[in-house]
Amino acid sequence: MDFFTDIATTILSQMQKPTLAFLLGGMMLAALGSRLEVPQPVYKFVVMVLLLKVGLSAGIAIRSADLATLVVPALLAAAAGVAIVLLGGATLARWRGVAPMDGMATAGVFGAVSASTLAAAMAMLDAENISYEGFIGALYPFMDVAALVTAILLARLSAARSATTSGGTVTVGGGGSGGMSGAGGMARDILVDTLRSPAISALLLGIAIGVLGRPESVYQSFYEPLFRGLLSILMLVMGMEAWARLSELRKVAHAYVLYGLTAPLIHGLIGFGAGLIAHQLTGFSGGGVVLLAVMAASSSDISGPPTMRAALPEANSASYVGASTGLGTPVAILSIPLWIALVERTIGL
Amino acid sequence: MDFFTDIATTILSQMQKPTLAFLLGGMMLAALGSRLEVPQPVYKFVVMVLLLKVGLSAGIAIRSADLATLVVPALLAAAAGVAIVLLGGATLARWRGVAPMDGMATAGVFGAVSASTLAAAMAMLDAENISYEGFIGALYPFMDVAALVTAILLARLSAARSATTSGGTVTVGGGGSGGMSGAGGMARDILVDTLRSPAISALLLGIAIGVLGRPESVYQSFYEPLFRGLLSILMLVMGMEAWARLSELRKVAHAYVLYGLTAPLIHGLIGFGAGLIAHQLTGFSGGGVVLLAVMAASSSDISGPPTMRAALPEANSASYVGASTGLGTPVAILSIPLWIALVERTIGL
Amino acid sequence: MDFFTDIATTILSQMQKPTLAFLLGGMMLAALGSRLEVPQPVYKFVVMVLLLKVGLSAGIAIRSADLATLVVPALLAAAAGVAIVLLGGATLARWRGVAPMDGMATAGVFGAVSASTLAAAMAMLDAENISYEGFIGALYPFMDVAALVTAILLARLSAARSATTSGGTVTVGGGGSGGMSGAGGMARDILVDTLRSPAISALLLGIAIGVLGRPESVYQSFYEPLFRGLLSILMLVMGMEAWARLSELRKVAHAYVLYGLTAPLIHGLIGFGAGLIAHQLTGFSGGGVVLLAVMAASSSDISGPPTMRAALPEANSASYVGASTGLGTPVAILSIPLWIALVERTIGL
Repeated sequence: MDFFTDIATTILSQMQKPTLAFLLGGMMLAALGSRLEVPQPVYKFVVMVLLLKVGLSAGIAIRSADLATLVVPALLAAAAGVAIVLLGGATLARWRGVAPMDGMATAGVFGAVSASTLAAAMAMLDAENISYEGFIGALYPFMDVAALVTAILLARLSAARSATTSGGTVTVGGGGSGGMSGAGGMARDILVDTLRSPAISALLLGIAIGVLGRPESVYQSFYEPLFRGLLSILMLVMGMEAWARLSELRKVAHAYVLYGLTAPLIHGLIGFGAGLIAHQLTGFSGGGVVLLAVMAASSSDISGPPTMRAALPEANSASYVGASTGLGTPVAILSIPLWIALVERTIGL
Repeated sequence: MDFFTDIATTILSQMQKPTLAFLLGGMMLAALGSRLEVPQPVYKFVVMVLLLKVGLSAGIAIRSADLATLVVPALLAAAAGVAIVLLGGATLARWRGVAPMDGMATAGVFGAVSASTLAAAMAMLDAENISYEGFIGALYPFMDVAALVTAILLARLSAARSATTSGGTVTVGGGGSGGMSGAGGMARDILVDTLRSPAISALLLGIAIGVLGRPESVYQSFYEPLFRGLLSILMLVMGMEAWARLSELRKVAHAYVLYGLTAPLIHGLIGFGAGLIAHQLTGFSGGGVVLLAVMAASSSDISGPPTMRAALPEANSASYVGASTGLGTPVAILSIPLWIALVERTIGL
Repeated sequence: MDFFTDIATTILSQMQKPTLAFLLGGMMLAALGSRLEVPQPVYKFVVMVLLLKVGLSAGIAIRSADLATLVVPALLAAAAGVAIVLLGGATLARWRGVAPMDGMATAGVFGAVSASTLAAAMAMLDAENISYEGFIGALYPFMDVAALVTAILLARLSAARSATTSGGTVTVGGGGSGGMSGAGGMARDILVDTLRSPAISALLLGIAIGVLGRPESVYQSFYEPLFRGLLSILMLVMGMEAWARLSELRKVAHAYVLYGLTAPLIHGLIGFGAGLIAHQLTGFSGGGVVLLAVMAASSSDISGPPTMRAALPEANSASYVGASTGLGTPVAILSIPLWIALVERTIGL
């Protein structure tokens, strides 16, 4: 009982912290019909600067890191991404009233990672002076790409199977790989397309400059100081967006509401488990375990939906966008204090 | 004589301060035909961050404020807003050649508050180390909403009266309140619409997060340090805008030019008077009196015009936009040093 | 031999510095087909803030500068601008397969100055604690305007001459100077048009506020601290842009490729020579000589192309935009370490 009271207290005090306060504020504004908006170009720029910051700090950390300590969490992150998608394929995609294609697309988006949620978790750990591996940002693409590729491959394979049965034809997304068709070519197309997405590009650019260059001066004079403030703007946008997208869920099966509300917590536990293994094998820090759980709990709000739209044009975007942006993302962000409290009570922080 | 020389010296030295220098620079650029422009999305974002900052600091101050000291200035601010509109209704709206509807709309915009002008005044007081009540930002909506609601109600009532006489029909703006018509329903519609405007929304969001959350860390690392710089950008835009809008005044009666030039000074005196009463009753600070005078002197450049356009579609927007943005706002900003000097010579700073 | 090894080492270590690292990163992103982009309105704002910063610091420096020390480098900067255009007119514009009009336009753009390149060089000198005259930013317009006016005048005169011979007609750009035609009126039109361009306007506004106002507080709290970070964003954009524009060069004569690759180095030597003269005459600093060489090496990416398009509509913009943005600008930025090394080895830093 004491355990849960402690967790509840931690969560409540976190709600007042800037990150969650701005998220809730954005939801409230949208609910009250405010006409306040963050212009699209500014929003894109804010996201880019945040991702460059996360990438730069990861790159700078990788430069002086022992590569072995990086490889284990990276593989576990990828495994968690695949596991989340397989779980979604075995549950949501088989639900009555849910089209298998829509279910797989949603599972993929929930398996992918939200850079904003990750950034929010980092800001919260920083505020509490909880340390974590500097290279954490570099784990993001492993989980993200693994989940997206798995989901799209499974959706395509099942569609191809039912098409063979019914005699229909299937268009393969990613386009123009010509002779190199099949699962291998398709996976490669998805991989390339995902790496070229703005979110992953910005992150990888930051990592590359951090590893190969010496960006410390600009990192400390610009990217680091602006991080919290720009994150508060991003949370505002995500809160407004989440509220606006909730209505889209009315158009699809109720299964998505249930999935959007519970999946982040179950996925977070998968990430927490992966983090515990890394903790045993390589001494991965408690803060790192929190961030791995948050990555797994989060669903991709920036790069996921456009990737799905391009690769699985037959899937109904109202399902995965509504479930992830409307429910999955706010639930994931609001659950961050839960993972902090859970790690604190188990392996310590 | 010495009194006026002192005031003149203060005003001149203020012209060199960043705030006024950028305003004058913007006017000069526009006058010389420069093609420099601050893109609209960036401008909106700059305004939003400035208003969030003003709101956050007000909210943080309210959290530890004695509510009684807040109530008196708030009521006086609302009273000043109403008084300014009534004065405009008795002068400008009855002028020969001025349509009563246009005159009331202009009086409403001049009674409403310019957040940018308020921010400029705060920056000037900060630069001189003159202290003022932290909750001042929370007074803004009281004066703003009181003035807009009064002006729209009076304009609608007078239009309804002349329509009854002439047998015409009047469309009621704000739309869709159905059965709950009449002055009460109309006032409620205007109030809701004004509170949903981007400017007031941002301000109230900042106040809410400041009161209910603990945003101090992000306030000190982002909103506070960027305030002066973003204000200099805003002043640049307002200077260019003021010059561009001056030409619109040629299309309307000369009364608007006279009103735009003199009203800010008379309204500032009304605000100064309200501030003196608050000073007597609750020990309201000299800096607070300056800011109340500036609020009263200012005219709404962001939220006012769109509110008027929605509520009084029959009014000629060239009149109120030209008079407020072209003349009222620059005169109000340039008069800030006057209020500083006036308070310094009377109750002291 | 040792001399060249030293220069090579300096250049290589500069590649890791933030400025060049972000430029190379942007080129790499574009080469790999990333969909990352900096939205246009944000890009415009970033450029404006950088130019205001350069202008403000120049203006603040001019306020306390001995005007004589400013006049000599200013005249030498203008002379370098004219010399670069005359050189281009004698080489590129007479090349076989190059239209004289296109060649002159390209020479003009290469004679004009890139504010971004200048800002990058300043950031590099700051990072190495190499001092330079504060008023350097004020030299920019002298070289820029001198080069653009010379190029447009020469192009117009040669077109008028061939038109007289062939009996055709020529439209004079800049428009509407009516009776005041001829070279004098044309030069005045170009001058006014150039001064009204966003880049030069922002720079001159900063200088004016720096000289006439007291913007030190906002300069130190906003423009100075954000400079490096915004520059890294700008370099990213310029890298992506450079890669994208390289393809345009395929459409025009190969002469442009040769010119784009070699001209920045030759022009830099011209600027270096002008700097040496100023060093002898007025004790102009080594850092100042570096910046004069960089200005001369750079080609105008912001204000030049639109000026040319307006003044010489007959010229093929693929030639000057491709040669300057695709080759000239990256070569100029990458050559900054060369000028630092060269000055270090000659007059010292």
